[in-house]
Amino acid sequence: MSVVKQKTDQAVQILNELDIDLWLTYVRKTSEVHDPALYFLLEDRWLTWQSAIIISKQGHKVVICGRYDAANIEASGIYDRVLTYDQSIKEDLLAVLDEIKPKNIAINYSFDNIAADGLTHGMWLRLNKMLENTDYSDKLISSENLLAALRGRKTELELERIRKAVDFSELGHKKVSATAKIGMSEEEIEVMLLEFTKEHNLTVSYPPLVHVGPSTQIGHGKASPDIKMKKGDLITVDYGVFYEGYASDLQRLNYILQDGEDIPPTEVRRAFETCFKAISIGAEMLKPGVLGWEVDYAARKVITDAGYKEFMHALGHQIGRNVHDGGCLLGPKWEKYGQSVMYKVEEGQAFTLELHVYVENHGFCSIEEDVVVTKDGCEFLSDRQMELTLLQL
Amino acid sequence: MSVVKQKTDQAVQILNELDIDLWLTYVRKTSEVHDPALYFLLEDRWLTWQSAIIISKQGHKVVICGRYDAANIEASGIYDRVLTYDQSIKEDLLAVLDEIKPKNIAINYSFDNIAADGLTHGMWLRLNKMLENTDYSDKLISSENLLAALRGRKTELELERIRKAVDFSELGHKKVSATAKIGMSEEEIEVMLLEFTKEHNLTVSYPPLVHVGPSTQIGHGKASPDIKMKKGDLITVDYGVFYEGYASDLQRLNYILQDGEDIPPTEVRRAFETCFKAISIGAEMLKPGVLGWEVDYAARKVITDAGYKEFMHALGHQIGRNVHDGGCLLGPKWEKYGQSVMYKVEEGQAFTLELHVYVENHGFCSIEEDVVVTKDGCEFLSDRQMELTLLQL
Repeated sequence: MSVVKQKTDQAVQILNELDIDLWLTYVRKTSEVHDPALYFLLEDRWLTWQSAIIISKQGHKVVICGRYDAANIEASGIYDRVLTYDQSIKEDLLAVLDEIKPKNIAINYSFDNIAADGLTHGMWLRLNKMLENTDYSDKLISSENLLAALRGRKTELELERIRKAVDFSELGHKKVSATAKIGMSEEEIEVMLLEFTKEHNLTVSYPPLVHVGPSTQIGHGKASPDIKMKKGDLITVDYGVFYEGYASDLQRLNYILQDGEDIPPTEVRRAFETCFKAISIGAEMLKPGVLGWEVDYAARKVITDAGYKEFMHALGHQIGRNVHDGGCLLGPKWEKYGQSVMYKVEEGQAFTLELHVYVENHGFCSIEEDVVVTKDGCEFLSDRQMELTLLQL
Repeated sequence: MSVVKQKTDQAVQILNELDIDLWLTYVRKTSEVHDPALYFLLEDRWLTWQSAIIISKQGHKVVICGRYDAANIEASGIYDRVLTYDQSIKEDLLAVLDEIKPKNIAINYSFDNIAADGLTHGMWLRLNKMLENTDYSDKLISSENLLAALRGRKTELELERIRKAVDFSELGHKKVSATAKIGMSEEEIEVMLLEFTKEHNLTVSYPPLVHVGPSTQIGHGKASPDIKMKKGDLITVDYGVFYEGYASDLQRLNYILQDGEDIPPTEVRRAFETCFKAISIGAEMLKPGVLGWEVDYAARKVITDAGYKEFMHALGHQIGRNVHDGGCLLGPKWEKYGQSVMYKVEEGQAFTLELHVYVENHGFCSIEEDVVVTKDGCEFLSDRQMELTLLQL
């Protein structure tokens, strides 16, 4: 059974749970603007003309699309009916609505959940114009709760892919530790990881981030050709891949021992231990029913209580079809995160747990693990980094 | 000079021409939903948090983005100022607006032009909420005319890339003619083209379409493993690539001679000549100032006057950063095409010219060329297919 088949079946179940009669994904030219809901609705190929993908609470699965796009959708066997048109989608769309007579219609827009916000404003205007003077003009609601549940609750097949993506990230991190040498630049590590990914016919789920020593540029900055490894440096690498469309997102931390050292200096060890403890506290808090911000708060407090500067991002985001999978976020109640941190955590959601502190003279100390929420807690998908990887170079 | 630098400069010029004070591209998590306007505003890497990219008529170029995204944008040297925030974008955005005091603000939504419709409805709601009770709440307009001009008017650097993409497509088509053999399936040709593309470190600009003989599935259907070449078949292949981000889109037509034939049967020759003539008439019509539908109409009439069934798509779409580049379309006045066929053609726009007829017992007869609009006409970017490629297999 394909992931798309599993997810469209799951959608019917969630529509019933949320008492939504109909879910309408309305798109055009998906190679130009791609509604992320399509990951769960279609096999790989894209749609050219305006198309409507309809799933109902009763189990209807219907696609209306341009004539030339129909063959692949029919071939997938997922939809009961594939209706095609040449000139306008309106007539078929209204006919299907009249058949189902939904009391509410969920469409893909959301103030806070980017993964449920694939409907463009132009398409929103088009849809409203089509529904003008029909029974459905006042029936549109946001699909954000539906999509948060659908994206969040991973099926076994989805989890299997994420696990494989995580395993591959770990291989990449091991390769970094094995090839690191004095004088190697951030950029060389980045290039090596990109080549490693390509050799294995995979793609990165985001550009790898490489941070070497105290002068690195923190954040999503490009790896520098001028910043090179030297003794006493912390080396943080953030590296994830897509495995059959599913992402990993994992950071690993190395320390280059200085002459005469067999363990890192106290301030480096203390930084690692504090980050490690914060991740542990986050993982302990993470279980079905807890609110996103509560998990973030507990981990964040470990860092600030230890006297470190607060990290200015969320503790954890979901992973799945994208490296930031939307819906419930384990983050602080900052305006930019909106309602996403107020959602309850659900079983089957896969999250990152990530945070960092900065260690003067040594660099960026950052850990990131991937976990999945279980019935009463969470399970690490990654082979957790228990201690600093020490390099004697 | 980079394409992005050229395009942001061109944007300032177009803002003056259209008397728009400010262009605002407002995005978030661009790996999830990617506003196509970003192709012209940023180098390759993506934005994580809510970001505003502002270009003014007076020449201001400002980005407001999350702290961790700033480094790459600063490094590009294209923007005068890169402002960063941790918690909310609102304050900086309003401060920049107060500085420029625009009488109108173009944002990326459009009823008809998909390439100018990258603002999601959720982001539209967010923007309106931020502007509530400010001087700018009633100043929002669509950027569709701006983006149609910006995407349409290719710079020399852009045209150079399209030419290279076209050249590469032609190589692929030659390879198909050279390797075709009796019994080879549609799918084998598709796989061959995908491998050929990959070997050269390029990507296809759309999945190649392969049509063999009379039983092929017309349209964007998947190439079949079961439909195999036999004598008397027309073989149509539609194959385009991206070269440094710019697309080609080209079809070529082969005919497999039957035993004893040295030219194709009359009905096949007549089909090719009719398609060829229709493309010629379209190309003759295509010049600055003509309306999109007028060009389509002239070519379409050649086909229907010859007694063939009308092709159910537009004669030509623009190519550029995408294989369907939006803005002016050379298409019929069908509802789904909206206003796009009412635009005037402009110098510097690159178009496909494509149409087909079906030949009973032989298959799909389709030609597609790529052209660029010049000062007083158009020029073929592709080495035009002047006659059927005859295969003796």
